Amino acid sequence: MGALTARPLAGLPEITAGADLATLILDAGPAPADDEIVVVAHKAISKAEARIRALDSIVPSPRAHELAAANDKDPRHVQAILDESAELLRADHGVLIARTPHGFVCANAGVDESNTPGDGLLILLPRDPDRSARALRARLRELSGRSPAVLISDSFGRAWRLGQLDTALGCAGLVPLDDWRGRHDRRGRELRASVIAVADAVTAAADLTREKDSGEPVVIVAGLGQHVQADDGPGAAALIRPIAEDLFN
Amino acid sequence: MGALTARPLAGLPEITAGADLATLILDAGPAPADDEIVVVAHKAISKAEARIRALDSIVPSPRAHELAAANDKDPRHVQAILDESAELLRADHGVLIARTPHGFVCANAGVDESNTPGDGLLILLPRDPDRSARALRARLRELSGRSPAVLISDSFGRAWRLGQLDTALGCAGLVPLDDWRGRHDRRGRELRASVIAVADAVTAAADLTREKDSGEPVVIVAGLGQHVQADDGPGAAALIRPIAEDLFN
Repeated sequence: MGALTARPLAGLPEITAGADLATLILDAGPAPADDEIVVVAHKAISKAEARIRALDSIVPSPRAHELAAANDKDPRHVQAILDESAELLRADHGVLIARTPHGFVCANAGVDESNTPGDGLLILLPRDPDRSARALRARLRELSGRSPAVLISDSFGRAWRLGQLDTALGCAGLVPLDDWRGRHDRRGRELRASVIAVADAVTAAADLTREKDSGEPVVIVAGLGQHVQADDGPGAAALIRPIAEDLFN
Repeated sequence: MGALTARPLAGLPEITAGADLATLILDAGPAPADDEIVVVAHKAISKAEARIRALDSIVPSPRAHELAAANDKDPRHVQAILDESAELLRADHGVLIARTPHGFVCANAGVDESNTPGDGLLILLPRDPDRSARALRARLRELSGRSPAVLISDSFGRAWRLGQLDTALGCAGLVPLDDWRGRHDRRGRELRASVIAVADAVTAAADLTREKDSGEPVVIVAGLGQHVQADDGPGAAALIRPIAEDLFN
């Protein structure tokens, strides 16, 4: 195994609805190589896909009013969170933890008020981040002839640990889970439970290279060619633990 | 912000009880710089600290027998897990999720059968990984005159997501949490909930550069000098969510 490197892509303009992200990425620097990974903060994707709501347009339900009052939030923001949730798992400490229709468990169902394109706007998660990743990869290939892997990330909190880690919402061309089960350690003993969440480790690594206020949504990661493949693969959906196997609902 | 790089340190010998890890690290390559981070898989630390138990020496309690039968495990292994646990949170699907005396929530209380120095041996977590990290950092400084940050890692599973991420058990000289709360986004709006788990992101990144069977427990991470400080800081203990604030006990 060799060295891993991650570098933020400078010089991207503000992303607007309908933006062709692949063109913007290729205009901002050399084309990412076939064995590299293009990690994109989901907000850039959501802006390009117009996954944005105006607070003014939202009429909160009685339940949204109730949750907002109990958790010191704007009832319109809470309504947007409920609209983006399949299930609300916890509402406590001013935090709403939801399971989204994709299956992600995260604060506020990923509905965010910061780094929006304007006041009074909320950014939602992409509707199908794996599809968004595949589309961006296909467009990069079409324009540059190269097929880097693509990851789409968001900052998620964790049970039991403080702080957030950038986590893979969408994935194309990267093996999301590196499964060592059935392989053996150096003494020949089977490794019983070693499945490495490669995609989540890459998004976490990429996030270290950018400041939260930098406006640099794209990071290029190199040195992990062994996990990049021509096939788009199962996507980040493969990282979601099935509800039936989840011990911490 | 610049590029991040991570490279595994080749050429370390098998670690044995009482080993001087700092000397072994400095013998294996150039001395890590003041703004670099030395990430050490906890097994190397546990071996040096003789945090190892022989299965043969363990007499399982009735409870260990019961849990072992229900979860298809060796009752002596289960007894070691119970001995290393402050609280057993879940026992299901053949998985024991424990809270350790340190406050870590992880499978099997971190007690591991793979990559052990011999058959019939179990590796335990270091007793005080933050102290171990500070001691290694001090010894590196004593020998080389340089004070890289030190992280000690283990692979932890996650609630809701499949696969494991290397997570920080011990930390010296790195800011474990980068707190952006109160700072502002590009439009001047306050970032309400952005605390980045820097130490966990670094351990996750480092793990990408090594194979699980490589015998390369040490990875050197560069490019994050802004998070490395002369003071050892609060350690990885700062990453543990207080039980009272934990919504997923």
